[in-house]
Amino acid sequence: MLKITILTIGDEICIGQVVNTNASWLAAKCTELGCRIVAHSIVGDEKEIMISELNRLLPISDFIIITGGLGPTHDDITKPVLCEFFKDELVFHEETLNQIEFLFKWRGLKLTERNRGQAFIPSKCTPLKNLMGTAPGMLFSFQNKYIVSLPGVPAEMKGLMENEILPLISKLILIRKEEVVLFKNIQTHGIAESMLADLIGEPSEFLGNGTLAFLPSYKGVRLRIGVSSGNFEEARKELKIIEDIIIKRAGKYIFAIGEDTLGSTVGKILKEKQLTLAVAESCTGGLLGGEITSTEGSSVYFKGGVIVYSNDSKINLLKVNPETIEKFGAVSKETALELAENVRKIFATDYGLSITGIAGPGGATPDKPVGTVWIGISDKVKSEAKLFTFVHDRAVNRERAVGSALGWLYNKIK
Amino acid sequence: MLKITILTIGDEICIGQVVNTNASWLAAKCTELGCRIVAHSIVGDEKEIMISELNRLLPISDFIIITGGLGPTHDDITKPVLCEFFKDELVFHEETLNQIEFLFKWRGLKLTERNRGQAFIPSKCTPLKNLMGTAPGMLFSFQNKYIVSLPGVPAEMKGLMENEILPLISKLILIRKEEVVLFKNIQTHGIAESMLADLIGEPSEFLGNGTLAFLPSYKGVRLRIGVSSGNFEEARKELKIIEDIIIKRAGKYIFAIGEDTLGSTVGKILKEKQLTLAVAESCTGGLLGGEITSTEGSSVYFKGGVIVYSNDSKINLLKVNPETIEKFGAVSKETALELAENVRKIFATDYGLSITGIAGPGGATPDKPVGTVWIGISDKVKSEAKLFTFVHDRAVNRERAVGSALGWLYNKIK
Repeated sequence: MLKITILTIGDEICIGQVVNTNASWLAAKCTELGCRIVAHSIVGDEKEIMISELNRLLPISDFIIITGGLGPTHDDITKPVLCEFFKDELVFHEETLNQIEFLFKWRGLKLTERNRGQAFIPSKCTPLKNLMGTAPGMLFSFQNKYIVSLPGVPAEMKGLMENEILPLISKLILIRKEEVVLFKNIQTHGIAESMLADLIGEPSEFLGNGTLAFLPSYKGVRLRIGVSSGNFEEARKELKIIEDIIIKRAGKYIFAIGEDTLGSTVGKILKEKQLTLAVAESCTGGLLGGEITSTEGSSVYFKGGVIVYSNDSKINLLKVNPETIEKFGAVSKETALELAENVRKIFATDYGLSITGIAGPGGATPDKPVGTVWIGISDKVKSEAKLFTFVHDRAVNRERAVGSALGWLYNKIK
Repeated sequence: MLKITILTIGDEICIGQVVNTNASWLAAKCTELGCRIVAHSIVGDEKEIMISELNRLLPISDFIIITGGLGPTHDDITKPVLCEFFKDELVFHEETLNQIEFLFKWRGLKLTERNRGQAFIPSKCTPLKNLMGTAPGMLFSFQNKYIVSLPGVPAEMKGLMENEILPLISKLILIRKEEVVLFKNIQTHGIAESMLADLIGEPSEFLGNGTLAFLPSYKGVRLRIGVSSGNFEEARKELKIIEDIIIKRAGKYIFAIGEDTLGSTVGKILKEKQLTLAVAESCTGGLLGGEITSTEGSSVYFKGGVIVYSNDSKINLLKVNPETIEKFGAVSKETALELAENVRKIFATDYGLSITGIAGPGGATPDKPVGTVWIGISDKVKSEAKLFTFVHDRAVNRERAVGSALGWLYNKIK
């Protein structure tokens, strides 16, 4: 197995100002290729700890991927640190300067001295052309291992990985005849983690050499199965055996195998059945539409929606009867029903999906605490509404409302 | 300075299936208290590497915060690992069982044997009551240091931190008379990182003992200034001096000091000036509304919007002239103008904000590549539209469209 470690450099990550999405993206991509991610490490922009981490990670890695600290400002010190680690020095690299000049020209900006300095790179590295930014990637080969330093800007890091590093890793796995590790996701919705574990039964009885992990989130429990094997084909076969057993035991709660989300799964079904959808959102303020349209090509089945964040907009735009709101409140079964039905009619879609609730922290009443959410679904035959009670903060309540709405719609149309 | 390290346990984080938002939340909270976050480490659910990491982190930490691996399923091994590390054994803890039983009763579920097992905890720890889940927190005191193990479910981890650990850390800083480290954010929009650095000038000339970091993102460049000092008051004073210099030099691009986002900043201004807003979204599908309503209390100024994901909905709901779409296209200055103006009129708000664009990967035409986005703003005096050209993938283009719309509105109303 090709052992990978990921070293993220940057005070902003270390002190928690920025979430480390780079590391998870990197890990997921390398895992897909069959590598084993041994560890992640995050340290601030400090020379001593960066060097001590490189020394610690080197013996447990075949490949170290470093991100961050390559910007043009004084706080970025990855390049001098790598020079010290490899006993190397910075040299001018003409091609890199050409690329920097090209980028500035294309953006219509004047090249600064600061950015010109980015064309100096350690002499022992192979520079990797960054098509989207001014800091090149730098690949070092050392003790039969590789160390690559990439910029922290996500799009630049991803471009360099996809164009240079992932192909190199694939080649290494083939050449070195490395064992591969493969994983597969089984996505469930509507069942708690411990109940799902009971349903699936004792893992050791059917896993063989494989692994099974339970990953609960606000959007459902994801199961991850994994196997390691001498080659891809063998690994895929073993995964399939475990997958089939789990489907047999918990199929009722499984909505997708693989990376599909509830949103993209719902989208696939709508597309396949040539059905269309519109949404009416109150407390989620557009997040449901945002989630549905995060899937490319969603315009085939998603026609739009109305963000009815005020009572007036519920009444004027979605023709909710003012008496309904007065009598039952904006967060009520009756309002959810009218929202779902009317948005369906106005957008002339097959389904209307509505959310109205109290996300918090304000807005609660004695009989409607924070987390009270009514979800409505309307099709050409009937309209229904369900009460959900969440107990979290604003952000989580909104996320759970979106997940519950999509989960219920999924069960209706699957 | 109280030195903190954060150890995240879990294959799902290690292989990149789940983004480590816990670690950034934890780091941000401890940073706020004046602690120094020395390092983060993420390892899979494997005994050997977990123990070796505990051994590595202990000498460089005053406090280790561990999250994850406390669930009721077989893949969660943090408890036995802690027993081995501390040469301890699991004992039954009655109060924890009571809490687990209470939670199950409250949810109307039958207690499973699996969850009953969660009431066994290492004998040397102080158990911390988890109000939101079945796994208690576990606090160990060791060699004048602290190690706490918390569940990985974000809401449970946060509850335990806020109720138990953050107060303990505050007390430690006071008792031990630790030096504090304080940071402050200065948020900019509409200027590139290297230009901003040039504008601010050589940091060493005004920073004193402080630090300055540049944190570029798709939403703008955030500046982080930091100082360490003997006490809070002194540190705050030093921060203010640096802040004032930066405001003097780059004030034009600064929209907030602190944690405010563009969305919450726009919200504050709208509220203060008693102005209201409605949105019309095409390619962002609801994300703009979602971002605006992520701020609590946004219903005071945000009245709602329409997700016009189809031409029909642009024409029928927002009364865009069909000839406008036919002649100029749905992604055009003319359509953006009509969307902004009409959504303002229909919602009877002071401002209408519209986004129509090609998020990609599909939908491009020869003269309108992926990333072409028109943004419109309409108030009672006039309507305007601006062309933005982004060059990224679907998700980033949508994020940048939301940021640019809010940035432009901010400049109009500030």
